[in-house]
Amino acid sequence: MTTLRTLRLGKAVALAAAIYGAQAMAQIQFQNNLMPQPVEMSIGSGGLYLDSTFAVEVKGVSDARLTDAIDRAVRRIEMATGLRHAGRGIAGTTRLVVKIDHPSAPVQSINEDESYSLNVTSSSAEIDATTELGAMHGLETLIQLVQPSGSGYVIPAVTIHDAPRFRWRGLMIDCGRHFEPVAVIKRNLDGMAAVKLNVFHWHLTEDQGFRMQSRIYPGLTAKGSDGLFYTQQDAKEIVAYARARGIRVVPEFEMPGHSTAWIVAYPELASGTTPAEIRREFGVSPYAIDPTRDTTYIFIDHFLTEMADIFPDAYVHIGGDETPAPDWKTNPRILAFMKAHNLKDNDALQAYFNTRILKILARLHKHMMGWDEVLTPGLPKDVVVQSWRGEASLFKGAKLGYEGILSAPYYLDGMQPAGMSYLADPLPSSSDLTPEERKLILGGEVCMWGEHVDARTIDSRIWPRTVAIAERFWSPENVRDVNDMYRRLIPTSIEIESLGLTHLESEDPGLRALAGTETIDDLRTFASVLEPVSFSERARTQHTDQFTALNSFVDAVRPDPPSRHWFESAVKRLLADPRGDITDRTELAAWFTRLSGAVPTARQQMLASPRLTEVTTRADQLLQLTVMGQQALRYLGNGQKAPANWKTKQIEMLDEIRKPSALVNFTFLPGMSELVKAVSE
Amino acid sequence: MTTLRTLRLGKAVALAAAIYGAQAMAQIQFQNNLMPQPVEMSIGSGGLYLDSTFAVEVKGVSDARLTDAIDRAVRRIEMATGLRHAGRGIAGTTRLVVKIDHPSAPVQSINEDESYSLNVTSSSAEIDATTELGAMHGLETLIQLVQPSGSGYVIPAVTIHDAPRFRWRGLMIDCGRHFEPVAVIKRNLDGMAAVKLNVFHWHLTEDQGFRMQSRIYPGLTAKGSDGLFYTQQDAKEIVAYARARGIRVVPEFEMPGHSTAWIVAYPELASGTTPAEIRREFGVSPYAIDPTRDTTYIFIDHFLTEMADIFPDAYVHIGGDETPAPDWKTNPRILAFMKAHNLKDNDALQAYFNTRILKILARLHKHMMGWDEVLTPGLPKDVVVQSWRGEASLFKGAKLGYEGILSAPYYLDGMQPAGMSYLADPLPSSSDLTPEERKLILGGEVCMWGEHVDARTIDSRIWPRTVAIAERFWSPENVRDVNDMYRRLIPTSIEIESLGLTHLESEDPGLRALAGTETIDDLRTFASVLEPVSFSERARTQHTDQFTALNSFVDAVRPDPPSRHWFESAVKRLLADPRGDITDRTELAAWFTRLSGAVPTARQQMLASPRLTEVTTRADQLLQLTVMGQQALRYLGNGQKAPANWKTKQIEMLDEIRKPSALVNFTFLPGMSELVKAVSE
Repeated sequence: MTTLRTLRLGKAVALAAAIYGAQAMAQIQFQNNLMPQPVEMSIGSGGLYLDSTFAVEVKGVSDARLTDAIDRAVRRIEMATGLRHAGRGIAGTTRLVVKIDHPSAPVQSINEDESYSLNVTSSSAEIDATTELGAMHGLETLIQLVQPSGSGYVIPAVTIHDAPRFRWRGLMIDCGRHFEPVAVIKRNLDGMAAVKLNVFHWHLTEDQGFRMQSRIYPGLTAKGSDGLFYTQQDAKEIVAYARARGIRVVPEFEMPGHSTAWIVAYPELASGTTPAEIRREFGVSPYAIDPTRDTTYIFIDHFLTEMADIFPDAYVHIGGDETPAPDWKTNPRILAFMKAHNLKDNDALQAYFNTRILKILARLHKHMMGWDEVLTPGLPKDVVVQSWRGEASLFKGAKLGYEGILSAPYYLDGMQPAGMSYLADPLPSSSDLTPEERKLILGGEVCMWGEHVDARTIDSRIWPRTVAIAERFWSPENVRDVNDMYRRLIPTSIEIESLGLTHLESEDPGLRALAGTETIDDLRTFASVLEPVSFSERARTQHTDQFTALNSFVDAVRPDPPSRHWFESAVKRLLADPRGDITDRTELAAWFTRLSGAVPTARQQMLASPRLTEVTTRADQLLQLTVMGQQALRYLGNGQKAPANWKTKQIEMLDEIRKPSALVNFTFLPGMSELVKAVSE
Repeated sequence: MTTLRTLRLGKAVALAAAIYGAQAMAQIQFQNNLMPQPVEMSIGSGGLYLDSTFAVEVKGVSDARLTDAIDRAVRRIEMATGLRHAGRGIAGTTRLVVKIDHPSAPVQSINEDESYSLNVTSSSAEIDATTELGAMHGLETLIQLVQPSGSGYVIPAVTIHDAPRFRWRGLMIDCGRHFEPVAVIKRNLDGMAAVKLNVFHWHLTEDQGFRMQSRIYPGLTAKGSDGLFYTQQDAKEIVAYARARGIRVVPEFEMPGHSTAWIVAYPELASGTTPAEIRREFGVSPYAIDPTRDTTYIFIDHFLTEMADIFPDAYVHIGGDETPAPDWKTNPRILAFMKAHNLKDNDALQAYFNTRILKILARLHKHMMGWDEVLTPGLPKDVVVQSWRGEASLFKGAKLGYEGILSAPYYLDGMQPAGMSYLADPLPSSSDLTPEERKLILGGEVCMWGEHVDARTIDSRIWPRTVAIAERFWSPENVRDVNDMYRRLIPTSIEIESLGLTHLESEDPGLRALAGTETIDDLRTFASVLEPVSFSERARTQHTDQFTALNSFVDAVRPDPPSRHWFESAVKRLLADPRGDITDRTELAAWFTRLSGAVPTARQQMLASPRLTEVTTRADQLLQLTVMGQQALRYLGNGQKAPANWKTKQIEMLDEIRKPSALVNFTFLPGMSELVKAVSE
């Protein structure tokens, strides 16, 4: 079957294309913005100009999933370039050719071949892949290749052979603590597909909410969700949406801990006392499902059987973490059971529970996954361990023969910069695992826990940092240039914004609401150098629970904004030769001036709005920092010495500024320290 | 039944509240930000401080619709103030008391009493209304009253008696030409409720798309929608969502013209030739449903009967506009029918058609609505005429005894400033209608036609301009102070942004995508003085159709941005006394400086991005304008004469700048003309 589609240029662009013609051909300068970077790429000369003769051809095998993916890709190229798609079969001469060997299996397996080749010449772009999964990755690469050239757009001539380093490249979203609407999930799936992530790990139950409808046990959402849950129809829609984008959906149903919502609805599952309602507080809860009753397993069996119908993926995540279960140490019935079954402690009882759940899942042809804690002696080998504790724990599992994925360095709520997660490798070549053990490391997952995010802020916590981690999961280990990563992060961030993600736009509405005005230029400038504190610092400093309105300044600002890496790099270059090239010095000085110029108005707005007042200290500190910065630049530029005690005073000031205030930190303190230290006294 | 809910303050605010205590009480300065303005308001002293004892009480009649509305209102107050809502019945002392006489009828009628009283004292806020409809309006007023005071928030002491001037206060959204997802409709319903609009007129069918699922005639969407349509479930959800917010939903099914989508699916409805597919071009189409066959009426009868089940409202809009229907003048069968029935022309045939549709609707207990064109001799009196042609047409209808609503001055795609639509009164006291005829003017509707909007841009076209028009429909005729309207528009705009509307945030993603960078400060400054040309100018200048990507600079900028009214007002004040108070002169000069400072970087970005290049001329012109402005300010400030010919040159320049370019216009040209003209030569 051959499908033809045609792109037609808008009138203005088409004319321009006719005019620039051949001259422009010579001007192409390949800009490598690809993210993740492909395994192999060679760059040719010239490229494929997107003009009115552009058409799409599917060679050989075709199915609706592939043609839909191509349609979406073409629509995105249109939006990015102003090209005009006529939507039907006007034969063109310039072609995008997509060729796959055979269709994907109905359920995407972890072993499906994801590789593709992409060959762009001046007359065509050809994608070859085993299945549509590889073809979809190739289309994403193609979109990222499109670049301006003269007055039009071109896909530079390249030959790419690409395949992922890890089979499991996931993003987990916790919808238990705060519910996330279907639209939020969908736009995040779009973002995932754009950077070739292939597993959406859907954390669906928590002490704070049971988010998945069960028809057999309607109480789970009736009593456990505040009315905020996914219907089975919603879930099926999301599974289909994900599949259309080459993404598997692994549902997580937390048991036996983090299970307040189950127990509120069905007290017969309780190990002891029954909570009166779902938990509003965060943190580890004392409630746990009773592992000693047969009725518990009948319940879970029915429930998982029902879920198997909605979630076709071969894996089911049972959580299994953080189960102190004090009832297991005090409930006489449970203690008697443990004694009778020779289960010496809580861990042994949980292992017993896991083994029984594993049997249920085996009957359903599902693999079981759990967090580190499931890894207890006697755990059958057919369980995948997700490590939130770190590499040591992951590698220990591998040495014991368990498959595993790494999550510890990819916790987004830690608010660490992209560059840091980026360098955390799930399987460094330096590790002491044997080749066989190495095979057990399936990949990694980014984790977005839900305590401090809602539909308005979640995208800015996930993106663009997850783009960097997605590259870690896909690209070869030696792709580790942090500067180049940050350079490519900007266009990729804008690309995924065009898919509907709100990570770049959510700050402004937050600031407007806080200030009660549309005039937020200065407040925005102020916010550009601040970022949220980590989850743990916020949890320690502010008492938050499920009812806390996430509408403070900390919720508006985003983690790792561009100021962080920009400043760090500029300072590094400057300090390498402080009296050399003045570009960085000039730019840094102008930056400080701009920041200090923004403070007066921003500060006025803070004083006028009770919800902003807490940030006033940070505004005052910003003024101090800009004075400090300008002085340091002057001393360094003149090669002049600072007055006695200047450095001591600045360092004291920095120490003061590092102290917690308003739940936000300045992004550029490390560079400031360097700058101050470099001054001679 | 008494329902109690409690607001608890977050810790920080609670402490602050304890500290500021009595002093702050004295500081309340009532800031009248209400929009629409109430009929009657008296301002007391002091107010109701929102603190940890705040609780909600529903007195007397209560139902789920009312308590849901209260819950939403409380959640919004929480978000606006940082208050913390515990969600259950901890009795408070400070109270919001809501009292209604009886529940609303199951289907909201045009005659339902919408009045309410709101009485705020230092100990309570009490809303009294006949039904929950009035109570909901009162809650919206209450939310708008909340203002900062000291380190907390207060609702100032007021007594308000309020009721709408017009019964029909609508917003029409055309989902035919471009489909709008359910989420877009819902957030617009939220915006409507916030400003007390009460009719969502849902334009569901067009030549370019049939957006409503029919189970009886599945072809309508299968062949007529590109897969973009509302399922019956979607529509029911939207109707319920609207009802929960006091909004009626009036569906529109265009007939006999604007009906390509019907005919594509069911060619037996055609008056002559059958189109091969839905229309991609905009404008008036030649296709029309055949009014001469009985089968046509059987089809429409079945269809409308099916729809009656989904749309409970008493009104159905049948469109009826723009039906040139050339087939009716040439098809021998139709000509014979006209002769046999003594129908002398197309108008008479359409009147015949309308009469037969009216019978169907009467059987379904529905009133018929149509655009001006339905008003033909012999039209039964029980038809509401919606006037897109203007007041003359509306009043003519009233004089003939027809009820009507006004839309002509409220066409958002005309891109006229809010202040202009604001002053257009549907029923000025100066009109020559009799009191009886005046009663026939039900109100007005804002119209958002769909040619040039998609889900990303539509909010910025609708809001905040619709806020101003909503006030026209609600408030007394003498509320006409444009300056005050613009002042109140800003907080109201931010209020509705917090409901999820994207009118303020959609510009930035557009600019980032166009420039391919996150660094858009200067581009944003440049864009702040430009606005889209009118629909008709765009249609004339650019060939657009349904496939045109709405991703140009014109799509990013918004109509009537704040720069327009700000500049106009500042110039007006300045010219009243050019050498007096220097505030405006200084601010205008600073503004010009800021604008010219933004041009170099913005211009560089335009040259680097093919999709932005078209705007370069506007950038050059902006530099000219700032030079012109600075010169004019200098001459005026010094009382100095300009060199000979200076004015002539400036006026020529302004004429040049007024010419079409890049589909955007400068917002401040009228004021510039004034400024230039005021200079002596």
